[in-house]
Amino acid sequence: MSLYPSLEDMKVDTMARAQISQYQARAAPPPPSYGAPPHAYGPPPAAPSAPNAHVYPSLGNYMGLELTADVIAQNMPEYQIQTVQSSGAVTNLIAPLSSQSLSLQKATVTQAIRQVLLCKDKDGKCGLRIHAINSGLFVTYVAANSPAALAGLRFGDQILEINNKACAGMTMDQVHALLKSLPVNGIVMAVRDRPFERTITLHKDSLGHVGFQFKDGTIVRLVKDSSAARNGVLTDHQLLEVNTINVVGMKDKEISQVIEKSPAIVNITVIPSYIYQHMINK
Amino acid sequence: MSLYPSLEDMKVDTMARAQISQYQARAAPPPPSYGAPPHAYGPPPAAPSAPNAHVYPSLGNYMGLELTADVIAQNMPEYQIQTVQSSGAVTNLIAPLSSQSLSLQKATVTQAIRQVLLCKDKDGKCGLRIHAINSGLFVTYVAANSPAALAGLRFGDQILEINNKACAGMTMDQVHALLKSLPVNGIVMAVRDRPFERTITLHKDSLGHVGFQFKDGTIVRLVKDSSAARNGVLTDHQLLEVNTINVVGMKDKEISQVIEKSPAIVNITVIPSYIYQHMINK
Repeated sequence: MSLYPSLEDMKVDTMARAQISQYQARAAPPPPSYGAPPHAYGPPPAAPSAPNAHVYPSLGNYMGLELTADVIAQNMPEYQIQTVQSSGAVTNLIAPLSSQSLSLQKATVTQAIRQVLLCKDKDGKCGLRIHAINSGLFVTYVAANSPAALAGLRFGDQILEINNKACAGMTMDQVHALLKSLPVNGIVMAVRDRPFERTITLHKDSLGHVGFQFKDGTIVRLVKDSSAARNGVLTDHQLLEVNTINVVGMKDKEISQVIEKSPAIVNITVIPSYIYQHMINK
Repeated sequence: MSLYPSLEDMKVDTMARAQISQYQARAAPPPPSYGAPPHAYGPPPAAPSAPNAHVYPSLGNYMGLELTADVIAQNMPEYQIQTVQSSGAVTNLIAPLSSQSLSLQKATVTQAIRQVLLCKDKDGKCGLRIHAINSGLFVTYVAANSPAALAGLRFGDQILEINNKACAGMTMDQVHALLKSLPVNGIVMAVRDRPFERTITLHKDSLGHVGFQFKDGTIVRLVKDSSAARNGVLTDHQLLEVNTINVVGMKDKEISQVIEKSPAIVNITVIPSYIYQHMINK
């Protein structure tokens, strides 16, 4: 079973696979029919006839359009389809569209654990705000250019350990006192990558739209038959990142500009509004 | 930056890396000091002395204990550490503990899109219940041994398309009418893998505990310094799967038995209680 980052990827992959099996059916002799033993009496059962390759003219013959790999690479580099070897096996075709998106890997929420090395700035601060939710500690604010930002902490990251001290069940006062007591250098944290968030890969349509409306950063409405609707974007979700650019606290106009400027493949990171409000309001 | 499925993996990996660099420091000559140019006047700066390898006796010498790879493989196959080549580079050490867990790959929530092929049973039913939440359709019940269960649908899966018809914004009546109108065979769905859920990898302690208490399947309390507390399990979350075994609707005693019977590495799948109640109560 194949897994795809977006519905568009699945459709293109399915079509590419069908095309390749078509090529192979034409190139290879019909498969031996295992049903009838060799030299059986009577005529062998008719092998399924190879699909007629000439029902549809190729796009080039039809109206002078050419969508060869070269033309796509020149005009739409973000949609460069992986080279398909018509003779080889169909193995690595997953995500023929989004696999070229550089931000996809960076944007993906892994929910895995990593180690982070921090220091304090000249004011003795790390530049992050932490809230306690459900016995866990979560990063709810990272100041720009602060040690926390340089170390790669993000909104929604869960802090599991600070200098090998487990943080589960700590109150906010306790963690602030702990952070205050630490030396300036060599603060080591174990961090779980944004447990409540998820990344959705969208594709802009010919007008440059991905297909959702938002108010105060919350997705409120989906456009019918848009990429957002196809890929299962949900209302009542807060936008946190657009192509790895943090949009928490941005005005709606600024978020629109970020989406406008982004390439054809847009990776958005979202969190349910209920949890977002819970994190922000405490 | 390395990513680990559990905090225990990170600790073991860090120790293994330290050990290897220790071996390499002993085996290889000290690195050339780039600070001083060759043939500089005066004595070269003292190279940092190799760490004394004899400060701690090896475990075998110390009290007759042997924790070699062979002994571990015999007695604790689930903790078999990947063979470490002391001469090679340290590359593939991520998750030395959990990488042998067969259920980890199956349990992981990918939030990616896949295609599912369904049919109807003799009563004309697929065996799944669907609820509409935030303009999306979610699977909230899968009957045992039904076509939906055999096709691999699970609680929390989001249905994006049914027979190439986009489902975004559909009401429950509409989707039920659509499913009723479909033929018995060849129902194709595009499904996003459980968007609201996440998998947490835990390790049992010597008493076989992972360290959380639950009531009606909801995690209500964490045990201090347990694997659950270390790995950032949160209260107010509903247990959905334990090592890929569905526990939705099970009594607490039955869930306890499933956890008891599972191997030392326990993968639990959870969802915030708020969203779970929202899905169930509608």
